[in-house]
Amino acid sequence: MTQLESAKSGNITPEMKFVAERESLSPEYVRDGVARGTIVITRNVNRDIDPLGIGEGLSVKVNANIGTSRDHKDFSEELEKLHAAEDAGAHTVMDLSTGGDISEVRRSVLEQSSVPIGTVPLYQIAADAPKKAKSFLDTTPDEWLEAIEAQGKEGVDFITVHCGITRESVKKYRSEGRALDVVSRGGSFSIHWMDENDAENPLYEYFDRLIEIAREYDMTFSLGDGLRPGCIADATDRGQISELIILGELQSRATKAGVQVMIEGPGHVPMDQVRANIQIQKRLCHGAPFYVLGPLVMDIAPGYDEITGAIGGAIAAYAGADFLCYVTPSEHLRLPDVEDVRRGVIASLIAAHAADLARRRPGTFERNLEMARARANMDWDEQIRLSIDPGRAKKMRESRPSHDEDACSMCGELCAIKVSKKKAKV
Amino acid sequence: MTQLESAKSGNITPEMKFVAERESLSPEYVRDGVARGTIVITRNVNRDIDPLGIGEGLSVKVNANIGTSRDHKDFSEELEKLHAAEDAGAHTVMDLSTGGDISEVRRSVLEQSSVPIGTVPLYQIAADAPKKAKSFLDTTPDEWLEAIEAQGKEGVDFITVHCGITRESVKKYRSEGRALDVVSRGGSFSIHWMDENDAENPLYEYFDRLIEIAREYDMTFSLGDGLRPGCIADATDRGQISELIILGELQSRATKAGVQVMIEGPGHVPMDQVRANIQIQKRLCHGAPFYVLGPLVMDIAPGYDEITGAIGGAIAAYAGADFLCYVTPSEHLRLPDVEDVRRGVIASLIAAHAADLARRRPGTFERNLEMARARANMDWDEQIRLSIDPGRAKKMRESRPSHDEDACSMCGELCAIKVSKKKAKV
Repeated sequence: MTQLESAKSGNITPEMKFVAERESLSPEYVRDGVARGTIVITRNVNRDIDPLGIGEGLSVKVNANIGTSRDHKDFSEELEKLHAAEDAGAHTVMDLSTGGDISEVRRSVLEQSSVPIGTVPLYQIAADAPKKAKSFLDTTPDEWLEAIEAQGKEGVDFITVHCGITRESVKKYRSEGRALDVVSRGGSFSIHWMDENDAENPLYEYFDRLIEIAREYDMTFSLGDGLRPGCIADATDRGQISELIILGELQSRATKAGVQVMIEGPGHVPMDQVRANIQIQKRLCHGAPFYVLGPLVMDIAPGYDEITGAIGGAIAAYAGADFLCYVTPSEHLRLPDVEDVRRGVIASLIAAHAADLARRRPGTFERNLEMARARANMDWDEQIRLSIDPGRAKKMRESRPSHDEDACSMCGELCAIKVSKKKAKV
Repeated sequence: MTQLESAKSGNITPEMKFVAERESLSPEYVRDGVARGTIVITRNVNRDIDPLGIGEGLSVKVNANIGTSRDHKDFSEELEKLHAAEDAGAHTVMDLSTGGDISEVRRSVLEQSSVPIGTVPLYQIAADAPKKAKSFLDTTPDEWLEAIEAQGKEGVDFITVHCGITRESVKKYRSEGRALDVVSRGGSFSIHWMDENDAENPLYEYFDRLIEIAREYDMTFSLGDGLRPGCIADATDRGQISELIILGELQSRATKAGVQVMIEGPGHVPMDQVRANIQIQKRLCHGAPFYVLGPLVMDIAPGYDEITGAIGGAIAAYAGADFLCYVTPSEHLRLPDVEDVRRGVIASLIAAHAADLARRRPGTFERNLEMARARANMDWDEQIRLSIDPGRAKKMRESRPSHDEDACSMCGELCAIKVSKKKAKV
């Protein structure tokens, strides 16, 4: 039985208990959320890791993407990124490899990680086609489903499937036109295949078979937003919302059939539209957990998209998004390096915490209060321990020491806190 | 006549015309805003720089703080920071030097800068006291006013004066208590002086004399928030709001007397209280431009406070804040270095642009659309040119080149945009 099937039959599983304890919630609350589809507990039945809860009423979670590309097939660097992401505090990792032996990368990632792992199986299908001496465009729906089944068996915890890319939603997006066309790789592959084969998207047409596979392994669907906007001008457009409507239909079908579902969301969205995006997703997809990529609140800051993503992510999470996919400083410019990964995870954790704090999630206010007290006491060890990235805080403080041990080199003996305590001469 | 006096008498000055043109607004709109006190045009009559408009209906502006400390008296590094801040796009710079010969630093900053310069004159008063063989606590109100007059004469464009720190507001903040006491240096100095002398704050008591000085040089008041919260637990507390009420009274007096006024604001504020902070300031201070420090939406991210500040700054600016004081990654840890300054300015410019774009300020949507088109055309020179920090974007892209010149090393030949154009094989 999947977590969803158990919840529907009224059972509280050990996984629900585990999630409840971690989130300071009652097991009944978690079970009810899973049963209604507003919470997912992601973990493939074939994996031996802690289950992870994502959804309504839970703390906001953060995903880091790693993976080789055809330009950078260095597999060991991707494993380094995996560990860097986990060390920084990522709750899940997606292996989006497209270069080299991607099956081998994925197996290593599954073996070496202690967090749920997601994939986009379409990349495997595209990678395997040449081995069969064919183009991706000549692959068959059966081959697609076989690849997904194989990943379920391997232990992949959640999969991005772009089932909402259909003849209907593609027609809608094309009828309005776009400044920047389709920017999702899975989305563009699917559309290319559909156009060439003059056929419906297999992931939509054979959704019931997909459900069967996912149910077997309790693999969570992350229904992909292949038509997500790639620029501010395309945000919240006809194509995006048409796809979202279809995702809502599929969410109902999957939930009814006992398969857990998250919904993926944008993308590039100006600040004034972020809340509306969350609200419409929550309504159309019946409260399913919303997994957003950023969102990036502008197009013009390449090199700093972890910041544009943190702004959008904080606002989205405060408005109800449950799961933030990180964006690194290298987005739009290059494949990220290990430091980019670390920085991307921290920026998203900051966004998640900002929202959790604003929504008074258990423990968040108290953690900030502890930091305030450590500052009041000028207890630097404690300040560093309470930091979101203690290593960096320590290194920065030590790089410019103050002559005054109590204070930092910004104010030194003129530290306001010291002056307030009247210990300092002014 | 100050800009405010001119505006009140119905005149459109060359400065108003200049600001109007830069902001794509009518000169009448700017004049009306200046007359009502919702816009300031900051430039000391003794300076030869472009005037800068800040306030309602204008694009959001960004300030960078520089300045020596007693631990780091290296004056040349501060001038490097000045240039780094201007190059990155800061609209104003505040010289907050407290170490070494701070008069000399300020004179160099005024000489070498092309943007309005702000100061906190109290630091000069504290620095001069030992030269007169006395403690800051023994300085007299006359000495305070003389120091401010001297800075007006030198050409300082705007001054932070903590006039809202009064016996009344101090009593209010003490009656509630705080997790982290006073974190404003100017605030803590003032309170210390008031306690030791058992006297009212001279900047409040002799506010009319302060007005006379400011009017002479058309030096803009930036009424300081000496009681701003230094942690989430203290946000929007009795002390902060009591001080804000007094700042609103002083804003009325100054505006009536022809002196331009901005109001300074927090500080550490959780996301859910940011909008309320802007709204209450705008109401209590009659629409005066609001100059916020961050705000930082959490306490626990030292090393990344440019990000916590960008989240708060974007939300604040979208809610109506007019002027963002940057926060650097080194906040709470050390005096910033040149790279911290650059990074802090860019983070604040991102926050400002996010809000300007969401509020559809002239040109903002178009600039993002240009970027989208450059991406659609895979025109990398143009993408770099349109970036908020072209140097960094270029460097990052070149550090990991793609084999595929059109694309970047993230996706290479699998670039969704290329696939959508059907130029790429999948």
